[in-house]
Amino acid sequence: MTSCWGQHIHLSIFGESHGPMIGAVIDGLPSGFTIDEAQIAAEMDRRSARGKDLATPRKEADRVRIVSGYFNGKTTGTPLTGIIENGNTYSSDYEKTKNKMRPGHADYTAFLRYGGFQDYRGGGHFSGRLTAPMVFAGAVAKQILAQKVPALSVGSRIVQIGQVRDSSVLGPKDYAALQYADAGFPVVDGTLKEAMIREITEARAQKDSVGGIVEGYITGVPGGLGSPIFDNVESRLASFLFAIPAVKGVSFGSGFDISGMRGSEANDAFRMENGHVVTATNHNGGINGGITNGMPIVFRVAFKPTPSIAQTQATIDMATRENTELAIQGRHDPCIVIRALPVVESAAALCLLDLMMEAGGRHE
Amino acid sequence: MTSCWGQHIHLSIFGESHGPMIGAVIDGLPSGFTIDEAQIAAEMDRRSARGKDLATPRKEADRVRIVSGYFNGKTTGTPLTGIIENGNTYSSDYEKTKNKMRPGHADYTAFLRYGGFQDYRGGGHFSGRLTAPMVFAGAVAKQILAQKVPALSVGSRIVQIGQVRDSSVLGPKDYAALQYADAGFPVVDGTLKEAMIREITEARAQKDSVGGIVEGYITGVPGGLGSPIFDNVESRLASFLFAIPAVKGVSFGSGFDISGMRGSEANDAFRMENGHVVTATNHNGGINGGITNGMPIVFRVAFKPTPSIAQTQATIDMATRENTELAIQGRHDPCIVIRALPVVESAAALCLLDLMMEAGGRHE
Amino acid sequence: MTSCWGQHIHLSIFGESHGPMIGAVIDGLPSGFTIDEAQIAAEMDRRSARGKDLATPRKEADRVRIVSGYFNGKTTGTPLTGIIENGNTYSSDYEKTKNKMRPGHADYTAFLRYGGFQDYRGGGHFSGRLTAPMVFAGAVAKQILAQKVPALSVGSRIVQIGQVRDSSVLGPKDYAALQYADAGFPVVDGTLKEAMIREITEARAQKDSVGGIVEGYITGVPGGLGSPIFDNVESRLASFLFAIPAVKGVSFGSGFDISGMRGSEANDAFRMENGHVVTATNHNGGINGGITNGMPIVFRVAFKPTPSIAQTQATIDMATRENTELAIQGRHDPCIVIRALPVVESAAALCLLDLMMEAGGRHE
Amino acid sequence: MTSCWGQHIHLSIFGESHGPMIGAVIDGLPSGFTIDEAQIAAEMDRRSARGKDLATPRKEADRVRIVSGYFNGKTTGTPLTGIIENGNTYSSDYEKTKNKMRPGHADYTAFLRYGGFQDYRGGGHFSGRLTAPMVFAGAVAKQILAQKVPALSVGSRIVQIGQVRDSSVLGPKDYAALQYADAGFPVVDGTLKEAMIREITEARAQKDSVGGIVEGYITGVPGGLGSPIFDNVESRLASFLFAIPAVKGVSFGSGFDISGMRGSEANDAFRMENGHVVTATNHNGGINGGITNGMPIVFRVAFKPTPSIAQTQATIDMATRENTELAIQGRHDPCIVIRALPVVESAAALCLLDLMMEAGGRHE
Repeated sequence: MTSCWGQHIHLSIFGESHGPMIGAVIDGLPSGFTIDEAQIAAEMDRRSARGKDLATPRKEADRVRIVSGYFNGKTTGTPLTGIIENGNTYSSDYEKTKNKMRPGHADYTAFLRYGGFQDYRGGGHFSGRLTAPMVFAGAVAKQILAQKVPALSVGSRIVQIGQVRDSSVLGPKDYAALQYADAGFPVVDGTLKEAMIREITEARAQKDSVGGIVEGYITGVPGGLGSPIFDNVESRLASFLFAIPAVKGVSFGSGFDISGMRGSEANDAFRMENGHVVTATNHNGGINGGITNGMPIVFRVAFKPTPSIAQTQATIDMATRENTELAIQGRHDPCIVIRALPVVESAAALCLLDLMMEAGGRHE
Repeated sequence: MTSCWGQHIHLSIFGESHGPMIGAVIDGLPSGFTIDEAQIAAEMDRRSARGKDLATPRKEADRVRIVSGYFNGKTTGTPLTGIIENGNTYSSDYEKTKNKMRPGHADYTAFLRYGGFQDYRGGGHFSGRLTAPMVFAGAVAKQILAQKVPALSVGSRIVQIGQVRDSSVLGPKDYAALQYADAGFPVVDGTLKEAMIREITEARAQKDSVGGIVEGYITGVPGGLGSPIFDNVESRLASFLFAIPAVKGVSFGSGFDISGMRGSEANDAFRMENGHVVTATNHNGGINGGITNGMPIVFRVAFKPTPSIAQTQATIDMATRENTELAIQGRHDPCIVIRALPVVESAAALCLLDLMMEAGGRHE
Repeated sequence: MTSCWGQHIHLSIFGESHGPMIGAVIDGLPSGFTIDEAQIAAEMDRRSARGKDLATPRKEADRVRIVSGYFNGKTTGTPLTGIIENGNTYSSDYEKTKNKMRPGHADYTAFLRYGGFQDYRGGGHFSGRLTAPMVFAGAVAKQILAQKVPALSVGSRIVQIGQVRDSSVLGPKDYAALQYADAGFPVVDGTLKEAMIREITEARAQKDSVGGIVEGYITGVPGGLGSPIFDNVESRLASFLFAIPAVKGVSFGSGFDISGMRGSEANDAFRMENGHVVTATNHNGGINGGITNGMPIVFRVAFKPTPSIAQTQATIDMATRENTELAIQGRHDPCIVIRALPVVESAAALCLLDLMMEAGGRHE
Repeated sequence: MTSCWGQHIHLSIFGESHGPMIGAVIDGLPSGFTIDEAQIAAEMDRRSARGKDLATPRKEADRVRIVSGYFNGKTTGTPLTGIIENGNTYSSDYEKTKNKMRPGHADYTAFLRYGGFQDYRGGGHFSGRLTAPMVFAGAVAKQILAQKVPALSVGSRIVQIGQVRDSSVLGPKDYAALQYADAGFPVVDGTLKEAMIREITEARAQKDSVGGIVEGYITGVPGGLGSPIFDNVESRLASFLFAIPAVKGVSFGSGFDISGMRGSEANDAFRMENGHVVTATNHNGGINGGITNGMPIVFRVAFKPTPSIAQTQATIDMATRENTELAIQGRHDPCIVIRALPVVESAAALCLLDLMMEAGGRHE
């Protein structure tokens, strides 16, 4: 299978960038949970390029139409399907360059994988546009979680864009209270916003692009979710995060920095606090042995710079199998980090819901 | 499911650190492939603490007995099972401290997950000892791959131990030719070995531990393996790597560093070379859009310092639900990075074999 | 998961009887296979009630719109999605009786399973209407199989309707040559057609319904498909067949009659015939030890009489939790056997394709 | 995968008839349930040939050794593994006839599937001996169910052996109270026992074998278990039952007979009885729309006659690819129905437990 995820809920994503529609089927949801379509639209807008002067000129309404599993404003528990019509597509942009493999893109590997039969327009099924159904599914999961576990909250923040990095150090208790000067650009050290935006605008001016690092976090997590070995929380969440286009790294807690620590520092000491078990530090990101310990789940996601750049690049032509050059026209984001925030949160929300279904409770 | 992995081959791991035996059932293997038990033993020895003065005094022979799926020296294609008897266990080490939750360990989360019914001796099913069946399975996968794709090779190297980091920069063509001064301690910059070992011995002397970073690589990879969205190669390999105890981060290619690059740098340009498609650089680690492009698959794995340290640590007692202190006796590794190398390679080999089964070919 | 099937291809079905649309996502298909939409329409018509005076007055066009995984007339290999708009629904038929549990239907069990949040209109997700996406998926599978294995053919015939049974005995070689006087009413003993139709018309006249038995068959099957124990062909095909509403029994070869045979009769003797391995008889329905032996796969499916009947029936009211009576209005089939034929064939085609994907070959 | 079953619990079976051992890994079990090894031994004895003069002379002790997932007499919730040593094997029986394909057996299909690399001794992984780990797993499931749902009970009875059929008609209320004159030979009409045994002894005297039909039943079933479409209870239970060697048919409730009924008869009317919902009849076998309705789950399983018979049979030689004859020596059952009873019950118990895990409750 190529486009399915989940053990208890089951997400199936379909569609191509320039096909008639894209969508998601979410199976195994609990029944009787209220879904507010306005909240779905709000999440879709966070991902959408509309109103973002730093994003691609391709502006999609991304209006989701729920066509199954939804009755009288609530989930039925049967497969919930949302479809999003594609519009505003200029396929001709791609027709004339279809044999030129865009560097950093899946053009060449898709060619190998599908024998040349893939829909190459706009990246087809590999397009970042396929993150729209992910956000739809995540928006549904967030609403169900909010009704199941009111204390639970999913968030994300920008840690790095290009060379500008926010080195703010946060303790486990800081996450529940995180506020941002600009909710649309969530940086803890707000003074960095300008410099981060400059990274993007400068790259775009140079027909280039930049990447960045997003930190996702979940607070109010019930302890004891997940399992050892292969069914651990890190594996399950990472398997979704790596499915987001452009992601090349995933880490939990102190991540790669933990490798430089001593055990005496990395071990988060357990303490009793008002009858609750807490840890003083959270270098393990709320997960021990693959199972949640009740502290915030904190993870980082490394995004590479958008591979679509307007500069002329060296590449190959699959028709002639000769070296050639390519200047990508199309319409692209100089940096997808900002639009990626709701996608990262969706992965977290869906993973949490999947984990919670294990502990049962199929009805509202 | 808690201890199963794979889509086409299917690995099921069982056992506890202090139970009678641990083992692995590998289902869905192709039939007719020769298995050399000596090669399995050699891989088991790489993981074993025996003869490693930097490792735990607990020395297990880790002799694998193949009890199914193996006939006349070849795989039958039916479930191949290997069992490893546990010996040399001092359960009494754990009995008296069973209610004291070891910081950085799964004691507390296992308690939540299993309601106190888990086998707490030596970490039970959460023990690093469960990596032995992983290595057994990996050794089988390596041998099948060697017969299926002679050009394919799986390797790993130490990038960091404690604070000592090997910053050697390798190009895509360097991996096939990597040689190490000490195969048992694979560091590209051999001059760092002494300093890395000092990190470990100093930590041990201070009743502490250190972590490290391992880089795994696969050369001679066929292009076109994997699929888009959720079934991508990164997700599938990462889901195994995060199942290795103490892993807190996984990245591919340039990993988190790619987030600081410009697209014009991160995009690996495709070139024709003697009729073959190659990329000049390999910042994407041999994977575009979740599918292999034929370049070396390169990935990094962040290991945290061994949580078991002899220092007295603050923690809680689950029986009294009060704060307490704990000085772990037992026998432990001050650094598991060296022993982790064959485990990381096993994840890579099993993932590659799983991917190759998609392209069919059930017989030798 | 509730509505997914398959190991290598992956079918996800969504929708409710009175929702805006129903559909199917087929993932893991091979790429580059030509899909003729006219052939899909022809299969949809076989299932549709249109032009069938023995069927429900609810006439749906059941036009399938392929919205993904399909490019330039061929499969791309990415998820192929087909949607079918619902029209011609009289939901008011159901509103006033929603608390009266229709005997033989899923109303009561759906109430228990979904806590009363299910879409009860026309059976919602439990409706026989959900067999339309199955037939769409089966029509796609049939076309791919025809290109992969030209010799392979999937068919079905009516063995019994009500009390009228066709006892024709067929040898393994008869299946490839089966012809029917009326392809729309495939009975080997054509003289029985009239009596079978009378069973249906008499039942309808008495505000009642009848069931029947369908025999499905696949000829030209490659040998060696399937696996022992849980992954056998019978389990995989039966798991789909029992998903068809109203199916209460599935058998292979001589089915329940084989239990009365002696081993010397039931054992299909292997013979060499023009260099090919054949069996003189086919009591095992082309499957030994769960694996195809190259003879026709023959299986029978028992359908119960349509539970929706116009007679007044005793039942309960979930609102008052008291006994009550119910006379189902709505529009229903007095016998679904004829319309079930393409559904049974779809199960067979999808199962064969799923089995064949194991043997690899992802491209045309 | 070839030998795995289950969605929430996960059963993996391994081993060959003449290998060193066979066994089962049961993953995803709830923790804290008491396992009585004597009860496991009792179920193993029901399946064993020991003390059964109608069974094969091959007498295995079938003593199960639990080697993981079991601590202080209770399930830990981690993979529970049981192994059974093979003894009493005369492999030489098979060596000299390995190229002669036994009619009705998997020899030929295994040859196609595994390319000749399968362990052919005693049927290898296809052997009826692999039902021993199924019974072990079922015995564990039965004990957990008894602690989870004390009212629940799993049973089975003989409906037919050879030509002798027990036509006793049972109402839904009869199942909870079923008693048998001889618990080791459970026939409702005890007067038929003698005739049934005669069928077996006569067949054996004629170097032949007979089949039979087993009815399994579960009483005290919670309502609302299962799901519509592909995840229905019939599909899940049937997928296990068809994995039992020699099974060629599975039906629920009135099974194939329901096809001859009118809807007015087949529809089980819902009634309120002492505040509980019941049905007057149970033609649907306790399942509507794939979900349990609280009435007894009743199903029938058709077993073919043992394919191993001492008569000389016509077959082929795979080495010469010519017709030949074969007289099977070995040691075999003239009828496996009696020994199959605990296997059928195990399938039912494991399916019920798997279904119940969906409704959550991971601890005792």
